[in-house]
Amino acid sequence: MSVLTAEEALDLHRIRLAVEAVLEEFFAEQIRSPVSPHITDLVTTLRGLLFAGGKRIRPLMCICGWHAAHGKGDPAPVLRVAASLELFHAFALIHDDVMDGSETRRGRPSAHRALAVLHGDRAHRGNSRAFGANAGILLGDLALSWSDEMFQTAGLTAVQSGAVLPVLHTMRTEVMLGQYLDLLFTGGLDGGLETALTTIRFKTAKYTFERPLHLGAALAGSGAPVMDACTAYALPLGEAFQLRDDLLGVFGDSATTGKPTIDDLREGKHTVLMSLAAVRATPAQRGVLDAWVGSPALDEHRAAAVRGVLEDTRARRDVEAMIARRRGEALRALDRAPFPPAVTATLRRLAHAMTERTS
Amino acid sequence: MSVLTAEEALDLHRIRLAVEAVLEEFFAEQIRSPVSPHITDLVTTLRGLLFAGGKRIRPLMCICGWHAAHGKGDPAPVLRVAASLELFHAFALIHDDVMDGSETRRGRPSAHRALAVLHGDRAHRGNSRAFGANAGILLGDLALSWSDEMFQTAGLTAVQSGAVLPVLHTMRTEVMLGQYLDLLFTGGLDGGLETALTTIRFKTAKYTFERPLHLGAALAGSGAPVMDACTAYALPLGEAFQLRDDLLGVFGDSATTGKPTIDDLREGKHTVLMSLAAVRATPAQRGVLDAWVGSPALDEHRAAAVRGVLEDTRARRDVEAMIARRRGEALRALDRAPFPPAVTATLRRLAHAMTERTS
Repeated sequence: MSVLTAEEALDLHRIRLAVEAVLEEFFAEQIRSPVSPHITDLVTTLRGLLFAGGKRIRPLMCICGWHAAHGKGDPAPVLRVAASLELFHAFALIHDDVMDGSETRRGRPSAHRALAVLHGDRAHRGNSRAFGANAGILLGDLALSWSDEMFQTAGLTAVQSGAVLPVLHTMRTEVMLGQYLDLLFTGGLDGGLETALTTIRFKTAKYTFERPLHLGAALAGSGAPVMDACTAYALPLGEAFQLRDDLLGVFGDSATTGKPTIDDLREGKHTVLMSLAAVRATPAQRGVLDAWVGSPALDEHRAAAVRGVLEDTRARRDVEAMIARRRGEALRALDRAPFPPAVTATLRRLAHAMTERTS
Repeated sequence: MSVLTAEEALDLHRIRLAVEAVLEEFFAEQIRSPVSPHITDLVTTLRGLLFAGGKRIRPLMCICGWHAAHGKGDPAPVLRVAASLELFHAFALIHDDVMDGSETRRGRPSAHRALAVLHGDRAHRGNSRAFGANAGILLGDLALSWSDEMFQTAGLTAVQSGAVLPVLHTMRTEVMLGQYLDLLFTGGLDGGLETALTTIRFKTAKYTFERPLHLGAALAGSGAPVMDACTAYALPLGEAFQLRDDLLGVFGDSATTGKPTIDDLREGKHTVLMSLAAVRATPAQRGVLDAWVGSPALDEHRAAAVRGVLEDTRARRDVEAMIARRRGEALRALDRAPFPPAVTATLRRLAHAMTERTS
């Protein structure tokens, strides 16, 4: 690939295309490998998920981190590390959908559902639904391994590896721990606001924004000032991003988000939104939340009642205010950041796009 | 650690202790890390599984491979790679038990059951069983990531990394593909003998024997003759090992194996044993297999009927003969192998132990 300037490299559309080209080439190699023809089922399903959509935020952050730290030299290894984050994210989504029993993702059947359909179509014996869930676990495992394979074959120098590996390992442990906290407190409304905020810090703010920026910056040999500036921008932005996600999960338009807006309520995730509402609810309002949040029997009518409580307790309004406050904090961090102007401009644009989005 | 001679290093007891020390140190580091106190739940469960038993075959094979290729120099990185295989295997077992819904492993509650109990004990809200399965998926993911972290921090030279990585990546893809084939043909008796043999080649022979030997040999800078000799020994031995496992899963003593002997029959795994029986069964015998193999309603009485069919069709006897033939093949491969005598002697002893075992 050609060497890009910071301006060209920070063209989101261009990054998407470059990341997708790396992924396509990797899948083509796996299919060419002689392990077994059956691997095409798994590759096809994984490609289907990856190319059905996605914002490629983590690759973009990684490449922004590289430019933020004034990265010089061959960008091909940076792009490969960035693409490996997208494969890692596919792993996280696949297992998340198995755990939540989600039927759809990016407006299509989720990976484990697609595998169940494939099983049914071929008239294999056994329960297609159980097969789908189990094959989904395996496909996630494969995506995680392949993410690693892509990373390990990125052609990093020894110095780059030494700088990047601790960040990568921390990121993985953090996101898995965030997911664990999410599980631990799902189904209860009494975990409290602090727990909800800790969970989104690990699960989203660090995983989606801070660590990908750090990875790119570490590849460029960044020192503490750039790393710290990345953190000062990424953590409030990441929290705002997840708070927006939580609002969209309940109040969003499912045609735009690609996921039914009833799923989050049925799962009973312990979100900041819910924990605010739970604290302020009258006994009658609390009764509505206790009865229906996290209940498989939740229907559209009951979802509307829950949404009413989220409005009436002003939980929705206050989450909007939290998003605005955090976006402001992220933007102010950029004012002080020692990044090249093109990077600051891109990160500023992203801070708006990520917190004002509708999908 | 001190430099060991091949004889000392091939002391199984010593290898177990050394591997366990590496694992213990790794867990202690993770607990000391400031990610979150909740990580102790996950570390405790993972340690519980790892230290409840296990033959440490893969680490042993890895260290045998190193000595087979006349490995010289610092053995500490070799030991760390070997231990990372044990962590990888913990990942595979945890996800396997979630997929199969297995309640026990190594004579104790399986990891996802242990996590369900922990959830119930703390009186968290939500369904403890569902929590356990989901937390089991996450714990497996964490074990896979940590296996990688241990590998990546083994301190390999660039030459070692270059030789070892392709083997590691192939091993991972192969075992996941083997698991996928296993899923795809479970519940049906008509997959045929060839499919059953292909599955165990990927799932066990390559994963448990061939690739760990290759990893150790690659660390020592081995050329093709040693690699080929490893394969010639490992593939027949690995198949024999899995055939023994299949027999133990149906005819073994659950007090010795640590798993109920009814589980395998209930799951309806498409084993060589079953496919031999299915081909030879009379219509009445086939009726017994079709009705009960893979049925959740299978009880001890019906299991006895199925075992009767496996005896009467001589499937059990012929699997014993297949084991003996493959063991012979593995032993003959050792006669021709360019390994140091201490390695050949250990591998010879292991070929017997792994195929004549009762647990």
